Amino acid sequence: MRRISYGVAASLDGFIAGPQGEHDWITPDSGIDFAAIYNRFDTVLMGRRTYEVALTRPQVLEALRKKVVVVSTTLDPARHPGVSIVASHIPEAVSALKSQPGKDIWLMGGGVLFRSLLDAGLVDEVNLSIFPVLLGGGVPLLPEGRRSPLALKEAKSLPSGVLLLSYEVKKPGIAGQA
Amino acid sequence: MRRISYGVAASLDGFIAGPQGEHDWITPDSGIDFAAIYNRFDTVLMGRRTYEVALTRPQVLEALRKKVVVVSTTLDPARHPGVSIVASHIPEAVSALKSQPGKDIWLMGGGVLFRSLLDAGLVDEVNLSIFPVLLGGGVPLLPEGRRSPLALKEAKSLPSGVLLLSYEVKKPGIAGQA
Repeated sequence: MRRISYGVAASLDGFIAGPQGEHDWITPDSGIDFAAIYNRFDTVLMGRRTYEVALTRPQVLEALRKKVVVVSTTLDPARHPGVSIVASHIPEAVSALKSQPGKDIWLMGGGVLFRSLLDAGLVDEVNLSIFPVLLGGGVPLLPEGRRSPLALKEAKSLPSGVLLLSYEVKKPGIAGQA
Repeated sequence: MRRISYGVAASLDGFIAGPQGEHDWITPDSGIDFAAIYNRFDTVLMGRRTYEVALTRPQVLEALRKKVVVVSTTLDPARHPGVSIVASHIPEAVSALKSQPGKDIWLMGGGVLFRSLLDAGLVDEVNLSIFPVLLGGGVPLLPEGRRSPLALKEAKSLPSGVLLLSYEVKKPGIAGQA
C-alpha cells in the first residue's frame, strides 16, 4: 500500500500561510533539497484552493511532473484535462488511489483536506519544514478538530534555520500505539 | 542585561493547552532535563491565569524556588505575599526587572503576556518543547498579532519524540537582523 505524506512548510506557530495567504516567509534560500523530496513521490494530491495557487505558478506543477489529483466538488474536469478530479466519495477515492501500485503520494495541502483525510485514517506521515518565524495568524496547518498523536521519526536542522521534521501518524487500533 | 526567555511546552500545531485547557499530552516520561532549565533562571514571570494553574500545584512553585513575578491587574497583593505582582506600566516594570542584576528570567506563560512583551521588544528567546501530537485546537502559543522573525539557535530531539527548540527573537533595528 502506498503511503500518504502531508508535506508542507509551516511557521513555528503552526500556520501554512499568513493572514492574507502570504507565502513570502518561505524563503528561497532555505536549503531544502526539493529534488530528494520530489523523487519519493509519483502522485501529488491537493485541495482545490492549493491547486488554484499552483495554477498561478504553472512551473511548479510542470517541475513536479507527477500525476496530479485534485479534490474538488466545483472544478469542471473538462476545463482541467491535465489533472484527475475527485468530486465525491473522497475517502473511498483516496483509499483506492493508495491501493494502486506506484510511489508514495504527496498531500501538498491544504489543511482542510488534511483534516478530512486524517480523520478518515488515510494519512500516514506528516512532514513539516518549519521556518523560523512566528506568523501570528493565518491558515492553520490543521483546522480545528480532534487530537491526533504522532511519533517523531526524524528531525534535522538546516543552516538556514529551517527544521525538517518527519512524523508518523499513530493510528487507533494498532498495537503499541494510542 | 538579563534575558527573558519564553519557555513552554507546545503541540506540533502550536498550542500550549488543549481546547479545555488540557495538559495531559505533556507526558512525564518526556526526558526533558528540567533541573538544567531551572538552573539557568532565578526569576519566573507569568500571567495571572498561568499563576492560578501553578497555585493548584504548589509543589511546582516550591520546586522552582525562584522569585515569582505575576502580571495581573486583579490579584490582591495582600493575599499573595510570596509573589511580586505587576499591575500597571507592564513594559516599564518588566524592563526594570531585566535591568536588575541576576540570572535570566523565565517567561512561563501564558500566550497573552508573551504577545504583549514580544510586541514591546522585551522577549529575547523562545524555547519550545514540542510534543509529538496535533491537538487540533486549544490555547495558542502566541495570540493573533504581527509577525515576528526568529533565528534558530538549537534543535535537539529526545528519545521520547519531544523536540527541544531554541530560537532568538530578531529585533527590528539591530544590524544584520530583519
